[in-house]
Amino acid sequence: MKKAVSRATVDRLPLYLRALRLAEEDGQEIISSKELGRRLNITPEQIRKDLAFFGQFGHKGIGYFIGELKGGIENILGLNRNWRLAIIGVGNLGTALAHYKNFEPLGFELAALFDVDEKIIGTEVNNFRVYDFGKVKSIARRKLIDIGIIAVPELEAQYVADELIATGVRGLWNFAPTKLAVPPEISLVNEDLSIGLSALSFYLVQNSE
Amino acid sequence: MKKAVSRATVDRLPLYLRALRLAEEDGQEIISSKELGRRLNITPEQIRKDLAFFGQFGHKGIGYFIGELKGGIENILGLNRNWRLAIIGVGNLGTALAHYKNFEPLGFELAALFDVDEKIIGTEVNNFRVYDFGKVKSIARRKLIDIGIIAVPELEAQYVADELIATGVRGLWNFAPTKLAVPPEISLVNEDLSIGLSALSFYLVQNSE
Repeated sequence: MKKAVSRATVDRLPLYLRALRLAEEDGQEIISSKELGRRLNITPEQIRKDLAFFGQFGHKGIGYFIGELKGGIENILGLNRNWRLAIIGVGNLGTALAHYKNFEPLGFELAALFDVDEKIIGTEVNNFRVYDFGKVKSIARRKLIDIGIIAVPELEAQYVADELIATGVRGLWNFAPTKLAVPPEISLVNEDLSIGLSALSFYLVQNSE
Repeated sequence: MKKAVSRATVDRLPLYLRALRLAEEDGQEIISSKELGRRLNITPEQIRKDLAFFGQFGHKGIGYFIGELKGGIENILGLNRNWRLAIIGVGNLGTALAHYKNFEPLGFELAALFDVDEKIIGTEVNNFRVYDFGKVKSIARRKLIDIGIIAVPELEAQYVADELIATGVRGLWNFAPTKLAVPPEISLVNEDLSIGLSALSFYLVQNSE
């Protein structure tokens, strides 16, 4: 059952969470799928279908208790865990990611940086030491890395993914614009800037008509 | 009517487009909202509701003609336009974005880079000259910039947005983790890495159970 949850459903969960937090800040304790839908412009049917994947959250004739649903979604998203991250590729993108401030609030902890360039191995970026990717097997195991963030060029991404998987990493966040082949037990998320760009283009067309 | 379209709906349009392209590659010419929904795990009702915002795409008893719907969504998203971009802030993130390869296929053209740092003004990044942000008004007008990409620190983002808007820029793509105040005629999209991270966390929880 759980295996059938689509990425589209998963991507809506943080939106639900944000809307629930806003409703809570407004002093609300209960919300209907209709009102949640109105806040997000998603049909109440879609919301009920999404949440039904994960259990029985709604209460007949009442709606959702905001605190309960919020805690439920946080659990589903694992935001109460502490996943340990490594960034591979300390170029411009990797360096920018090493300075990202929202890892901790989302339950992630940056634990290591890796590169193959001898000029940057041994340096520090935002107080994180850059390790030699050639030693990733021992270092990633010692540092208990759960997730590898792939910030290397397209042509190196699959090699980096394979090496990371061999260290026992369980998740990959891929910023390289390429499709990676990974075994089914590995959680893979591709970061796709084209969604945001398409949205921007849409609003520009709309505003110019 | 069009003004009421939510960001959630807009974000689904590129997903519909991708699924239509895949179906087309499979040799299909017609698709039902049910099949499109199955491919994306979105309810057929949601799909019909999303598309109904933009006109009459479906044909009763037939479904959607893939070529027609694809062209329609490309028009809605303005992917056949040519928006001119400037990146403001040529630090790690801005430099990484200056190397992004998907601007052109999505209908965008990078036309200028700006920074305030005298050490990088006048240098070139990926063959784009870095201009002095102090001169943004004349340069952005001369280069017919439509969209500013904000890749500066949080505390400078609102100032940069205000200056860009004063040049006549019509859209902002904001990478700074802060909420910008902009007039309603300006199209604003915030890039939010936390969605991808939350999805990754979700899959890790699911795979470890």
